[in-house]
Amino acid sequence: MTEISKEEIDEILERYDKKRITIATICSHTALQIFFGAKQEGFKTLGICRPEMKRVYESFPLAKPDKFLLVDDYDEILSSSIHAKLIEDNVIIVPHGSFVEYIGSKNICNNLLLPIFGNRLVFEWESDRKKERNWLLSAGLRMPLEFKNPSDIDRLVIVKFHGAKGGKNYFLAKNEEEFHQGMEKVGANGKEYTIQEYVVGANLYFHYFNSVIENRIELLGMDKRYESNIEGIVRIPHLINKIKKDPSFVVVGNTPVIVRESLLQKILKIGEDVVKSSRDMFPKGLIGPFCIETVCTEDLEFVVFEISARIVAGTNLYMFGSPYSQLLYKEPMSTGRRISREIKTAIERGLLSSVVY
Amino acid sequence: MTEISKEEIDEILERYDKKRITIATICSHTALQIFFGAKQEGFKTLGICRPEMKRVYESFPLAKPDKFLLVDDYDEILSSSIHAKLIEDNVIIVPHGSFVEYIGSKNICNNLLLPIFGNRLVFEWESDRKKERNWLLSAGLRMPLEFKNPSDIDRLVIVKFHGAKGGKNYFLAKNEEEFHQGMEKVGANGKEYTIQEYVVGANLYFHYFNSVIENRIELLGMDKRYESNIEGIVRIPHLINKIKKDPSFVVVGNTPVIVRESLLQKILKIGEDVVKSSRDMFPKGLIGPFCIETVCTEDLEFVVFEISARIVAGTNLYMFGSPYSQLLYKEPMSTGRRISREIKTAIERGLLSSVVY
Amino acid sequence: MTEISKEEIDEILERYDKKRITIATICSHTALQIFFGAKQEGFKTLGICRPEMKRVYESFPLAKPDKFLLVDDYDEILSSSIHAKLIEDNVIIVPHGSFVEYIGSKNICNNLLLPIFGNRLVFEWESDRKKERNWLLSAGLRMPLEFKNPSDIDRLVIVKFHGAKGGKNYFLAKNEEEFHQGMEKVGANGKEYTIQEYVVGANLYFHYFNSVIENRIELLGMDKRYESNIEGIVRIPHLINKIKKDPSFVVVGNTPVIVRESLLQKILKIGEDVVKSSRDMFPKGLIGPFCIETVCTEDLEFVVFEISARIVAGTNLYMFGSPYSQLLYKEPMSTGRRISREIKTAIERGLLSSVVY
Repeated sequence: MTEISKEEIDEILERYDKKRITIATICSHTALQIFFGAKQEGFKTLGICRPEMKRVYESFPLAKPDKFLLVDDYDEILSSSIHAKLIEDNVIIVPHGSFVEYIGSKNICNNLLLPIFGNRLVFEWESDRKKERNWLLSAGLRMPLEFKNPSDIDRLVIVKFHGAKGGKNYFLAKNEEEFHQGMEKVGANGKEYTIQEYVVGANLYFHYFNSVIENRIELLGMDKRYESNIEGIVRIPHLINKIKKDPSFVVVGNTPVIVRESLLQKILKIGEDVVKSSRDMFPKGLIGPFCIETVCTEDLEFVVFEISARIVAGTNLYMFGSPYSQLLYKEPMSTGRRISREIKTAIERGLLSSVVY
Repeated sequence: MTEISKEEIDEILERYDKKRITIATICSHTALQIFFGAKQEGFKTLGICRPEMKRVYESFPLAKPDKFLLVDDYDEILSSSIHAKLIEDNVIIVPHGSFVEYIGSKNICNNLLLPIFGNRLVFEWESDRKKERNWLLSAGLRMPLEFKNPSDIDRLVIVKFHGAKGGKNYFLAKNEEEFHQGMEKVGANGKEYTIQEYVVGANLYFHYFNSVIENRIELLGMDKRYESNIEGIVRIPHLINKIKKDPSFVVVGNTPVIVRESLLQKILKIGEDVVKSSRDMFPKGLIGPFCIETVCTEDLEFVVFEISARIVAGTNLYMFGSPYSQLLYKEPMSTGRRISREIKTAIERGLLSSVVY
Repeated sequence: MTEISKEEIDEILERYDKKRITIATICSHTALQIFFGAKQEGFKTLGICRPEMKRVYESFPLAKPDKFLLVDDYDEILSSSIHAKLIEDNVIIVPHGSFVEYIGSKNICNNLLLPIFGNRLVFEWESDRKKERNWLLSAGLRMPLEFKNPSDIDRLVIVKFHGAKGGKNYFLAKNEEEFHQGMEKVGANGKEYTIQEYVVGANLYFHYFNSVIENRIELLGMDKRYESNIEGIVRIPHLINKIKKDPSFVVVGNTPVIVRESLLQKILKIGEDVVKSSRDMFPKGLIGPFCIETVCTEDLEFVVFEISARIVAGTNLYMFGSPYSQLLYKEPMSTGRRISREIKTAIERGLLSSVVY
């Protein structure tokens, strides 16, 4: 399997009718926002949808895609017959978290012969913890320490599993003994894990947009996560000792937050540094929306623990814009709409190829 | 006392001047939103108000009712002289949480001879725990287990009291001994109680609107609650053992939240199932706004613990619409406005009787 | 050093070209909101800015000040040469939290010979804990008890340090012994402190605006704070005993909240009482935005622990208005915009002098 080349995508794009572009994605994650934003910017929309999810997307008229492509299994979109259909509709795919999860970064790079908004090469870096860490450290960001061996644990750590969804089974430990107890408890012996310093502070997720068309990095919003069962556990502190199970951290939703204005300097710099560094990692670097996931310590230092190199679920809070995007755009500007705006402006300026791969 | 019949209400409605309908409610709970929404939709508004609350409703010009009906005691509105006045103004009552609490579900059914938006029969089901549980279980929803006898308690439970406001005096127990200790502590021996499995997870309150005019169930928003003193207690975990009092869970306010898009399927289904099931419980079933109060477990399962079959206080977050209603309506659509929109559309289509009882 | 008189400021104002007023502040805290609001109301804007912060304020086009005045040290604005420049631009200064902190209340009263929106005398009362307490108690508000001597501590208390930023080093104690342990732990022996009853409940910060032009007190919004590292600490309750450090309460940001509508009566009264009482404390009293910082107990009583007599950071949540301001104004009304609206209306009515000192 070889990587789909930029030239192959550009060839498809060249044959597209630029006046009839369709924005498409899988019906999940941030699809309502992506469709809503595409419609606001005047695009046709297409939802790649499992039959049981269709009703959800019909329930929100302003976000309902113009067309549904029903599939039983999402990787059907890797087939050449579906490619042909989508290309006929002049489709540009907007990838989101579930899209990357369902199709897989390898398949996106090697087998999804369709124009994607942004840079498909980024997913290889986002989904590989070592590459991701290398990238973020090269950008000069402070990350949590990592411990290779359980016997090295000398502080509070969190143990994460590769590919685990929503934080499922992640656990905390303070030393080697607790590490082994934890592995046994979650039945993870033998699984691949990462042992990471657990930095205590306030969680903050920053939503950026790197516009190669406007040549600027925009801060479109921020959020914090709402997780189960920890949100319930914290409400029974007087009973905590009686509960035998450790809390879990499965993401259920998101809540809005803003930061002290004096912290914006650091936050904007983090975004810029990540984009700059990405260009050393892979050709063209990061394009479009991304999210830096941080803990803000009591010393007001941001410790970065992850990057999501595409639209994140927390942006769904801001269908009509956030307190930050409202300082950037006169119209209600969600990240979903921002993507379509970038595509629209790129088309107007004859630069579509520079935001699609 | 016999139930007011639909025919009696329809007779009143028939005599109404449909071009001069006034939206009225008691000045509390969600009245600002209800008045604001009614004015946005072009209705006259009337606030049934205790003298000391008048200034509050005068402080918000866009929500200030056109007329105040001052009462010292809210159940004055059950008198025939006030009925006459309100009928003269072509009043449709919009009931909210405090309205139901102050007037009482029995009085609403038997003695409030005024057109009410929605179905007045629902309050009998909402306010009776057994009927409510029967309804929700019939709808196929998962509810917390209930224990008849304190000696049956085999897991973490919450003990609730009938008619207690805002969660006052609710307490948690893990076994019979703690149950008795708790009852003594809150001085509740002899009171009627419910012993309910305490499901640990993230609280989520979903705001639905069942439109019989548009024949669809809309998800208008969601919230979580902000409670005292628990919100303060969680901020002093290192001192928790030194505090002798158990936390309390008195609702003080609400905060916004959104959920993972993949959960919307389950959430929409819960709303549909509750409405469908309501039609087996009482004629015409649930009409208009309602709220399902859930805990989302770490397995992303929703456990339902209550239904509010009218507008809920959490909707006050979304005076200008939520990230969900923004996908439904081009205008800023609060639940308060949605109610008036339904009345307006019903009038336009000659269907007012089908949304009022 | 003598206090700058109202007459001196009025003289400057008289020479101003009222059609070319410039709204100016230091680039920090709520400056984006202040500039954004000033532009919405049609004013020119000027940012007093340290060079390294300029990029932040250039990153948000709709809030970017028309002019930057670069300074290495903020107290340069006390120099007469800069005064001259700013007066030439018909500048009205809008003070915010960082402004007061950087320039100092004494300097504002004695050395800042420039028109300030509001009443500069208030900062002396806001920044002096004894005067502030005297003021709030005179207003009839319930405040936490204060203990002069550590030996008097008979309940949970919080120990605060004068001028400490963002709650840094604040600690909790239940008796004299814990007080001394705490002082030692944070290395505060010898520092000035306040020992305050720690009231457990839900934190709520109310954003008011006292309009002397419209002769009313408006509730523009409310928030709660997002603090580090406590927000992280609460997420690891099962490990709390293993962490040796006490939690800290450094403000990192803010999150939105609304209250039960029935509490608005008390909240509006608190605002009115504080304004009324301020007029006994200093000539003209409080003008413009202020914030009352409360804890709402489980008995739904508000205990007030501080006043900020200027725009607060939590208002940044509501760039486009809050659920409360949306009931006051048809346009999206932030506190920043409200300030400029007040100045604009004052100019139109020939009353500028009554909102500036």
